[in-house]
Amino acid sequence: MSDAQRPDRRAGSPAAGKAASKRTGRRPGGADTRGVVLDAARAEFAARGYEKASMRGIARVAGVDPALLHHYFGSKEQLFLAALDFPIDPATVAAVILDGDRAEMGERVARFVVALWEQPEVLARLLAVVRTVVASEAIAELLRDFMLRELVGRLAQGLGVDRPELRVELVISQIIGLAMARYILAAEPIASADPEELVSLLAPTIQRYLTD
Amino acid sequence: MSDAQRPDRRAGSPAAGKAASKRTGRRPGGADTRGVVLDAARAEFAARGYEKASMRGIARVAGVDPALLHHYFGSKEQLFLAALDFPIDPATVAAVILDGDRAEMGERVARFVVALWEQPEVLARLLAVVRTVVASEAIAELLRDFMLRELVGRLAQGLGVDRPELRVELVISQIIGLAMARYILAAEPIASADPEELVSLLAPTIQRYLTD
Repeated sequence: MSDAQRPDRRAGSPAAGKAASKRTGRRPGGADTRGVVLDAARAEFAARGYEKASMRGIARVAGVDPALLHHYFGSKEQLFLAALDFPIDPATVAAVILDGDRAEMGERVARFVVALWEQPEVLARLLAVVRTVVASEAIAELLRDFMLRELVGRLAQGLGVDRPELRVELVISQIIGLAMARYILAAEPIASADPEELVSLLAPTIQRYLTD
Repeated sequence: MSDAQRPDRRAGSPAAGKAASKRTGRRPGGADTRGVVLDAARAEFAARGYEKASMRGIARVAGVDPALLHHYFGSKEQLFLAALDFPIDPATVAAVILDGDRAEMGERVARFVVALWEQPEVLARLLAVVRTVVASEAIAELLRDFMLRELVGRLAQGLGVDRPELRVELVISQIIGLAMARYILAAEPIASADPEELVSLLAPTIQRYLTD
């Protein structure tokens, strides 16, 4: 368990002192402040959607000071990633797509995705996301709005193409589908394909969706 | 409910007379013979896998004559489709791919898939398959082996390309992924895209996977 999950264990540090006093003041008992905040965030995101949920509203539901949320999570986007244990940061993905040679965009994205899949802990979280999305329409809606808003927002200008939403969705569709074929259907030869071969299979499709 | 589901309703026909006598002889009581056969098929496919399960073994488990199975279902492949309520017949898919101009393969497949999606009842069954595959590793394995064996078997020669399994899996991956983006994530603009536009988006990717 990280320090951030147990602010009461860090009573000596200034930040945790603040957290502990807030917790003592507004959340009596042994409640784990970080857990309470994440529960409140999940409830607020589920009830209001990504766009309408606010750091202030989540702080109110959690019974903590909004400054505490900003201190621990930085932004609504980061709080969302933590609350849903979502392993893909749209800011990172946008940087991967936009930073570098435009002709190698597809390969960069493919390489980034396959590298994530090669990390067992990240892969497990990605597959958990796929399972949750398939099982819950509400979570599907929430994740879709989050990804489209944060990712398309960042790409729309930098990409300089028409219909950035459609392009991003096509890329996501091929990536989700390949993950399903490789890890959920576990179909050979895709299931055992070498990471470099996967990159070479994915890259041209992604390049075409993003730039053609 | 079809006649095949209620053989006792067709006691006057020779085939149903045979079914009814078998049912009376080996399965007393009000059991629905077709339901018993489908239950037995699901159990046998789950226990042995698609390749090793046999019509004879399924008939034994169901307590019916193997000839009855052949009469009602024609082949193990057709029995499998009925038992798993699987809405895609590999023979039909193989014909769509192979019959016609090779340069329009991608468009034919895309048009076939999008036409399936446009039928609400078929779409509901397709999405049920996706949900079941995600929820159950055993079903995923079974469907994978069925599709690869029956579809790749038919395509391997007719397609005349290297690595037909890999190609079919890439096509399936893009189709599953697009179905997820359109119907499960329900992301706009893909969710509301016109069928013709979907065909034009899918076709070049499928063409490349099958022939390049």
